[in-house]
Amino acid sequence: MKIRIFYEDTDSTGVVYHANYIKFCDRARSSFFFDADLPIEDKGALLVHSLDCGYYSPARLGDIIDVKTTISEIKKASIRLKQEIFLNKRVIFELNIKLVYVIDGKPSKFPEYMTELFEKI
Amino acid sequence: MKIRIFYEDTDSTGVVYHANYIKFCDRARSSFFFDADLPIEDKGALLVHSLDCGYYSPARLGDIIDVKTTISEIKKASIRLKQEIFLNKRVIFELNIKLVYVIDGKPSKFPEYMTELFEKI
Amino acid sequence: MKIRIFYEDTDSTGVVYHANYIKFCDRARSSFFFDADLPIEDKGALLVHSLDCGYYSPARLGDIIDVKTTISEIKKASIRLKQEIFLNKRVIFELNIKLVYVIDGKPSKFPEYMTELFEKI
Amino acid sequence: MKIRIFYEDTDSTGVVYHANYIKFCDRARSSFFFDADLPIEDKGALLVHSLDCGYYSPARLGDIIDVKTTISEIKKASIRLKQEIFLNKRVIFELNIKLVYVIDGKPSKFPEYMTELFEKI
Repeated sequence: MKIRIFYEDTDSTGVVYHANYIKFCDRARSSFFFDADLPIEDKGALLVHSLDCGYYSPARLGDIIDVKTTISEIKKASIRLKQEIFLNKRVIFELNIKLVYVIDGKPSKFPEYMTELFEKI
Repeated sequence: MKIRIFYEDTDSTGVVYHANYIKFCDRARSSFFFDADLPIEDKGALLVHSLDCGYYSPARLGDIIDVKTTISEIKKASIRLKQEIFLNKRVIFELNIKLVYVIDGKPSKFPEYMTELFEKI
Repeated sequence: MKIRIFYEDTDSTGVVYHANYIKFCDRARSSFFFDADLPIEDKGALLVHSLDCGYYSPARLGDIIDVKTTISEIKKASIRLKQEIFLNKRVIFELNIKLVYVIDGKPSKFPEYMTELFEKI
Repeated sequence: MKIRIFYEDTDSTGVVYHANYIKFCDRARSSFFFDADLPIEDKGALLVHSLDCGYYSPARLGDIIDVKTTISEIKKASIRLKQEIFLNKRVIFELNIKLVYVIDGKPSKFPEYMTELFEKI
């Protein structure tokens, strides 16, 4: 997913504010769901359980970055993803994130449509 | 309401990003409600109808600004506020905003507790 | 300019946070400059002088909105734009904004490349 | 550092947007520098190298959270911090972050005033 860097994404050090790379990765994840034709009535939610990330090189105003997502591990109620942000074909940021599927506050088995979606990533 | 300017509030031009002053004014408005002892079950919502603002001088990283709010006009279902942001006792930003009280999508008479709250501002 | 609404754009009322529509309009303005082939060394800056806006209807998570920009007035050192946000061909937000071209803190005549760019909008 | 949760911090799931907890931790770190009486002319910058975090429980609109920061490790040119966010005396979020002091793009020895500041945390 290609994302342009706008003023709102930068801070006074002249580069992208560190927490915003995490937003960009969320945009890429959400896009999988938006682009798929998903059932609307879902009682569950996919929550962020934990994440770790590394900052290798900054992006700047006007840059067009590219977020690439791969699945590291799928379990019954959780999934681990690796998301890399590229600028000019170089990785500038890397995120590992674990998401848990939760219904009424409890980790729950992924619904079938979600497992099918993960297979397409 | 005093607000410190953090990195997240600035952009790569070195000063506060223009849309963020509008967030600061929202914080001041919300604080009136948080600080008051309000009934929780309220079916209505106070929505932004329109606003206009002027940018006189920028705030920078580390600055402590002060948001001052005054009521310009109260009607049955709407209110107009004037909010000024001060830096070192000088007005650097001014906002005029109209909020409408809405229940189920329709403008509705303010509940009594809200009118009483407005009187305290 | 088409923009997808992500989680980061919404708030706990379930719709887009009011200050974020102003960010979307900035993205559309900035894109004109990014998409054009502009000289880099520019000592001046285009600053937000004032704006007014109206909120007609909310956008929600997953919506794709469309920002359309027209020039209302060009003067020697300032420009007024009208920006409308559409959702399903309906205007849901409207912004009028005045930008001033400033060099070393003083309003200054637009450089030629900028005037030429405005003519293309 | 106590921080109030405002509308801008939440998203349409009804709780604080996951990337914003990382902003709150940055506010706490920046406050150490703002509150200290630091020399202005510093050629270096303290950059985020990497971070990992865990989400235990969400914060909601109006909540007042408390960010607590402790130093995990100080080296010549880098520092590791642990930051915990409390809500009603319970830890709801935990961040481990490594910052590197950089001059002209190269990791550099902390200036003395910075080492002294760290000792006060």
